[in-house]
Amino acid sequence: MSDPIKYLLDESKLPKAWYNLAADLPSPPPPVLHPGTMKPVGPDDLAPLFPMSLIMQEVSTEREIEIPEPVREVYRQWRPTPLFRARRLEKALETPARIYYKYEGVSPAGSHKPNTAVAQAFYNKEAGIRKIATETGAGQWGSSLAFAGALFGIEVLVFMVRVSYDQKPYRRAFMETFGARCIASPSNETHYGRQVLAATPDSNGSLGIAISEAVEIAATRDDTKYALGSVLNHVLLHQTVIGQEAIAQLEMADDYPDIVVGCTGGGSNFAGIAFPFIGAKLRHGRNVQVLAIEPAACPSLTRGKYAYDFGDTGHMTPLTKMHTLGSTFMPPGFHAGGLRYHGMAPMVSHARELGLIDARAYTQRACFDAGVQFARAEGIVPAPEANHAVRGAIDEAIRCREEGVSRAILFNLCGHGHFDMQAYTDYFAGRLIDQTYDENELAMALAGLPTVPAGV
Amino acid sequence: MSDPIKYLLDESKLPKAWYNLAADLPSPPPPVLHPGTMKPVGPDDLAPLFPMSLIMQEVSTEREIEIPEPVREVYRQWRPTPLFRARRLEKALETPARIYYKYEGVSPAGSHKPNTAVAQAFYNKEAGIRKIATETGAGQWGSSLAFAGALFGIEVLVFMVRVSYDQKPYRRAFMETFGARCIASPSNETHYGRQVLAATPDSNGSLGIAISEAVEIAATRDDTKYALGSVLNHVLLHQTVIGQEAIAQLEMADDYPDIVVGCTGGGSNFAGIAFPFIGAKLRHGRNVQVLAIEPAACPSLTRGKYAYDFGDTGHMTPLTKMHTLGSTFMPPGFHAGGLRYHGMAPMVSHARELGLIDARAYTQRACFDAGVQFARAEGIVPAPEANHAVRGAIDEAIRCREEGVSRAILFNLCGHGHFDMQAYTDYFAGRLIDQTYDENELAMALAGLPTVPAGV
Repeated sequence: MSDPIKYLLDESKLPKAWYNLAADLPSPPPPVLHPGTMKPVGPDDLAPLFPMSLIMQEVSTEREIEIPEPVREVYRQWRPTPLFRARRLEKALETPARIYYKYEGVSPAGSHKPNTAVAQAFYNKEAGIRKIATETGAGQWGSSLAFAGALFGIEVLVFMVRVSYDQKPYRRAFMETFGARCIASPSNETHYGRQVLAATPDSNGSLGIAISEAVEIAATRDDTKYALGSVLNHVLLHQTVIGQEAIAQLEMADDYPDIVVGCTGGGSNFAGIAFPFIGAKLRHGRNVQVLAIEPAACPSLTRGKYAYDFGDTGHMTPLTKMHTLGSTFMPPGFHAGGLRYHGMAPMVSHARELGLIDARAYTQRACFDAGVQFARAEGIVPAPEANHAVRGAIDEAIRCREEGVSRAILFNLCGHGHFDMQAYTDYFAGRLIDQTYDENELAMALAGLPTVPAGV
Repeated sequence: MSDPIKYLLDESKLPKAWYNLAADLPSPPPPVLHPGTMKPVGPDDLAPLFPMSLIMQEVSTEREIEIPEPVREVYRQWRPTPLFRARRLEKALETPARIYYKYEGVSPAGSHKPNTAVAQAFYNKEAGIRKIATETGAGQWGSSLAFAGALFGIEVLVFMVRVSYDQKPYRRAFMETFGARCIASPSNETHYGRQVLAATPDSNGSLGIAISEAVEIAATRDDTKYALGSVLNHVLLHQTVIGQEAIAQLEMADDYPDIVVGCTGGGSNFAGIAFPFIGAKLRHGRNVQVLAIEPAACPSLTRGKYAYDFGDTGHMTPLTKMHTLGSTFMPPGFHAGGLRYHGMAPMVSHARELGLIDARAYTQRACFDAGVQFARAEGIVPAPEANHAVRGAIDEAIRCREEGVSRAILFNLCGHGHFDMQAYTDYFAGRLIDQTYDENELAMALAGLPTVPAGV
């Protein structure tokens, strides 16, 4: 038989616990602040939004948090996901590098998002919740929660950013097939939405606005909670099955990565692949370079400020310390909608401040160049978000060729591009341009960051 | 651990040979006739269209045909595909039936089609061919050959039925991502296309017309061959990895199907799952009911005539004996584009004549009802074609409930619906209507079947 191209783990090797990086960091991340009192929030402050089990995960410093059996049972439908050795891509690049990719596109929703959607739906169901409100930009997260809601018998209400709602009717149909209700945001269903519409009737919406709407619904209704698809600690935690599986699969290949690459929007798929490797570095001294790739048009890690900021535009969320471009920053419209967020997960930001993560920004055309090269070699068409990770991995592989060194490169192919073909159509038609933001607008958004008392 | 929901085969269990039903049938299928001489065709007659290795497979009566190692190497990227036990669907239906489904949507193109596309690309490459012309309706086949062509370095030219070309730009972008060239048919690139356009400038095209165009290109160019995605013996042969794997996976589950269900358009995914079970019945007396589900709007098996007919509208192909609605029959526009073909694979037709296969026709709305119920229980959104198999399986499971009998039902979920969400949008908007054909037009199409000398 030829050299292996696929490493599959037996179902029995599905991780039994999520890995919590907070247990191994040399210092704890800064506290989350109440936007009114500017004091650290306690579990009760978050109780209107989340079931207590998820709040406890949010603040936990336990290294391992057991995955409930009903969640593992759903995971087992598509997990462990395959790890591929990209031998055909290596050949096309004429590189001595060993390129591996973990493929999360095999999930029912086509990305890594169900890893946390299923967990969140389970804990809400367990707490007797009947309805969950959420937001979605590109649609990956809304699809995933719609899927998870269908399985656990929870109604799902998705505020979909207006511009995506209009441009991506198929994503909407996908969510509706799972029984979710999908509303264009800003909407007339919330106080905040009506406010925005009064000021700008033809608003395109934004992730920040949609978050405000979903949070408002959850905060004002007893039977409804809120769910977020990235950024929060418990969301990142649920994604760590990715990296844990990858470690076991690379053992099968008798290899270990020199470099781990992921794309970053809110930070969850990146944390999912990277945190278990960072943990192994901190605990066992296993050396690894961890590389976050972000869009040049929304570069929170490379151009943002590490500061306290709101997670939403309506300023209803608590304040978290993170790399942020400012909650009023409006990135230009580019195709990786899942990476168009002004902030970065606080835990990812903290790890970056601790020097555990490197970051790099790429323009979207360069990322699509890489995505198409990958598709022709490996047969999988990546999501625009994933193209960023592909670009990062290919550039590292090219560096190996130039330096004449064989390194092991692992990247997370976090989703397929089946619902993003308009982006590829634009790319082939030469309509995909590298828009950038206005430096003055960025400066203004950063100047508007909330003031936090000294000593916090 | 809970009861298993997924049966995975180790890579080492990937079949080493395709299974050829012709070896086990009690009588051979009728010969293929040359359209000019009305005499049985020989291998040389087909040589302008196919490499000799595929022609020999077309006429082979060997039971096992070895799968070349380079083909297995590509297969191993997504094969063996998973077999699922649909426990959540069983629960939703309150049925004592054991429902299993083989899921072919995990392939790079999202359906079973790459099983033969990869094989055909390999044999063409081996024969020194540089270019392949083909047709596509819904786009599944074109996508699969585009993928396979990219892997083996063969140029792929796809004639895409005009109405699909206009309605499904994302399928086209998907093919182009793999480097294929996609042309709306009827086109100005062929003599036959220009003829059709002269007569009907605003023609929507049809699969029959697109086949004629692709065949013409292959027949008139030395460096170009033709590839078909269904109907032919060698195509069905390549799909038998599906049923072979299913048999091994059901052994893991310590079960064997009472009923095997597949949807039928040209017949290839159906043959893929069913032929190995029919072979086991013929050789070892293992009893099984085999059920083909077809669209009521294009019912070749249930309403067609078993007769010699052309495979295309331009009458360039040889004549094969099959269940046909007549090569001039134009089915109404419905959403399972992969099932809109006037004929049925000769080998499937022959098996039906031998009493080895039952057939049933469903309207499309009933199939989408089933598809949505399946999606909400199992988390996978099926292709419109696959919804027919889902409907058949659900009805059999309901029968089990009514009769109070537990039977094992196996069906082929031949592809996902990610590129077919317009159909679901129409379904939810109440716009999906059950169009049917005109009985007079069917009678005329059948009256126009070619006359074949007696005694053939």
